[in-house]
Amino acid sequence: MSLEKTQSLEKAIIQIAQNARRAARTMAAVSSNQKNQALIAIAKRIQKNAPAIQAQNAKDIDRARTNGLSPAMIDRLTISDAVITSMAEGLLFVAGLTDPVGTLSDASIRPNGLEIAKMRIPLGVIGIIYESRPNVTVDAAGLCLKAGNAVILRGGSEAIHSNMALASVIEQGIKETGLPTAAVQVVPVPDRAAVDILLKQEESIDLIIPRGGEGLIRHVVANSTIPVLKHYKGVCHAYVDEDADLDMAVNISVNAKAQRPGVCNALETLLVHASIAERFLPLAYTAMTAAGVTLRGCERACALLPQIECATPEDWDAEYLDLILAVKVVTNMEDAMGHIAAHGSNHTEAIITADYSRSRRFVREVDASLVIVNASTRFNDGGELGLGAEMGISTSKLHAYGPMGIKELTTTKFVAWGEGQIRS
Amino acid sequence: MSLEKTQSLEKAIIQIAQNARRAARTMAAVSSNQKNQALIAIAKRIQKNAPAIQAQNAKDIDRARTNGLSPAMIDRLTISDAVITSMAEGLLFVAGLTDPVGTLSDASIRPNGLEIAKMRIPLGVIGIIYESRPNVTVDAAGLCLKAGNAVILRGGSEAIHSNMALASVIEQGIKETGLPTAAVQVVPVPDRAAVDILLKQEESIDLIIPRGGEGLIRHVVANSTIPVLKHYKGVCHAYVDEDADLDMAVNISVNAKAQRPGVCNALETLLVHASIAERFLPLAYTAMTAAGVTLRGCERACALLPQIECATPEDWDAEYLDLILAVKVVTNMEDAMGHIAAHGSNHTEAIITADYSRSRRFVREVDASLVIVNASTRFNDGGELGLGAEMGISTSKLHAYGPMGIKELTTTKFVAWGEGQIRS
Repeated sequence: MSLEKTQSLEKAIIQIAQNARRAARTMAAVSSNQKNQALIAIAKRIQKNAPAIQAQNAKDIDRARTNGLSPAMIDRLTISDAVITSMAEGLLFVAGLTDPVGTLSDASIRPNGLEIAKMRIPLGVIGIIYESRPNVTVDAAGLCLKAGNAVILRGGSEAIHSNMALASVIEQGIKETGLPTAAVQVVPVPDRAAVDILLKQEESIDLIIPRGGEGLIRHVVANSTIPVLKHYKGVCHAYVDEDADLDMAVNISVNAKAQRPGVCNALETLLVHASIAERFLPLAYTAMTAAGVTLRGCERACALLPQIECATPEDWDAEYLDLILAVKVVTNMEDAMGHIAAHGSNHTEAIITADYSRSRRFVREVDASLVIVNASTRFNDGGELGLGAEMGISTSKLHAYGPMGIKELTTTKFVAWGEGQIRS
Repeated sequence: MSLEKTQSLEKAIIQIAQNARRAARTMAAVSSNQKNQALIAIAKRIQKNAPAIQAQNAKDIDRARTNGLSPAMIDRLTISDAVITSMAEGLLFVAGLTDPVGTLSDASIRPNGLEIAKMRIPLGVIGIIYESRPNVTVDAAGLCLKAGNAVILRGGSEAIHSNMALASVIEQGIKETGLPTAAVQVVPVPDRAAVDILLKQEESIDLIIPRGGEGLIRHVVANSTIPVLKHYKGVCHAYVDEDADLDMAVNISVNAKAQRPGVCNALETLLVHASIAERFLPLAYTAMTAAGVTLRGCERACALLPQIECATPEDWDAEYLDLILAVKVVTNMEDAMGHIAAHGSNHTEAIITADYSRSRRFVREVDASLVIVNASTRFNDGGELGLGAEMGISTSKLHAYGPMGIKELTTTKFVAWGEGQIRS
């Protein structure tokens, strides 16, 4: 890119960030009613303007076909009638959630009479960098608005027409309810350079959330001077303890692996206590095979199931996102926890056991955003854990560890009320 | 630095980070009793080994004198008997605080019977990069240990002998109680390059806390791939509303400015409602002058107080840390809040008023880690707000906004208990 073009791009991005910062100040003081009305107005306009949105979407699909994108990618890009409905319904659902902004907690009175509390407030300006699915434009805008934030959305260049069409509808809905239109801005530039400039606006942006492949996320982390909430991948384990109910263990493992293999909370590696491996593995093999799952075993697993493939060292770190499962026989729970500490991705870890002490120890000592006993890893999801809608699952430990709901898009400040107190 | 030396430095820092990661796994499962015993053991050894620590400290002081450091810097570097006592007492105080690790919150039962809660856990590995005061080595180690973390400390090169002496005493105390010695490590290399390598170890380190001047902090933010909790500076305001009790306003302003001018929660700019400026400013001038404070006024303030200096545009962004106060007459509270939004540093903002609605609006709308009504800005402090000991005040909004106590050195994971639940 020419120097001149780079400078004008930088100017444009800085302008977007500063507009967002100003809008955030207004948004922080807006009532829940007004925010909800905006969400409802946007939902209505999405349904009303569906043909116009889909016409722009068709341009992106045409180009994707010309560029030879995979059918799966084109499917993710397509704004079908069902996607229109789901975006609109999603906004109405978020409008119905309780607004966390302004609530007080941790109240106390100090010995000098000063009354202290924490007040929940919006984070401010959130930047979202994502790939492919244009519905993220609407879902993310809805959650950020409800939490009182301004949001800057930067979707993939492959969805630029769809995103701009959605942005225009969102803008109309916001304007209609009197909120500042800069509360939701879509970066209208498909250049990658725009992302790198955005990632340096730490004076105007409070948080960056990248959503997409590991490459995108690593690029964001390496280049951002703004705090980032992210997860790279989900290498989730289930440990079948010696005291496990084997039918339950088979049932949970198959559900965790095969119910929806392409998602981050799907099971990737099954760890089996040595003393039950001989009884458990044939049961697991039969059920997994029936579900279309191919196993890759450690040496001990392969000795018990000679019909399966042998795992290579890479298998223990693989996020297959596919109907493949690595299986390892472990000596005991310490061995299993050691394997999880070495190969896990702090996402979701399960134990299947009937033993009281070991269930407690596994929950305490395993470091993951969800540690679950006797249930499927697939429950690590905002809806399933009761958060309502979510903005992805964080495996960063700071601020939010696990699914990020509306509350995770806010923070707290201290407030204090006095009657003239001074410090001595 | 030669390539060879750089590579061996990198190897050494990576080793420190990996040792910390391993130690963190052990620390997460350690009982409160054991952590408290370690803190007590370290406190005892600091008092017992005071002469040896002070002998090493003398080397740093000698070099500082040779290098012509200012008396204030040398004072901050000195481990006097009083500093020995305060470090030991600080550790005993932290030992007495309630351990947040392992506590459950936000418990609920999902419709499918799954029991959900959030469990408080240590953050993991914390890196602290600081300047000058060697007592930070002990204070930070104590807080991090109590919260169940492993910590990597990188003090300034000017305090390297003092820090290594303290590190050795801490190591003995930790070893004595059976905790992993890598739970507290001091980077033994004075090179600045060590910091830059440390800031890239995001696989092993969960959080970086820089403590020092703005230059150090900006360098850390620009170069870290690890989340950073920081504050650059404290440009704190007090707004004297038209309905303020003027005696209270004078009293609070003088306390906020002059009680300890060199700290981040000291007042830097006084904003005065135009309708009371004529009555208030002469009172404020007399009291401030008596307290040794020099005023720098806006045009309207200078018209009312012709004896004071006129402010330049730089004054509105200045963190004086000195007995100087900028004074601005504002048209109303909106004007004051606009000034704070433009020039404040999200640290501490005060209003002095007797008006109910404006007190509420100021608290809701001003964005700062502490917003305080009718009391001194000097109350933004972990001890004063009831957090016990603190690790500095964060003006980053993520994770911790305000003083960081033990709880802010932890996070929460989701835990769930089932009886075989699977997802449909």
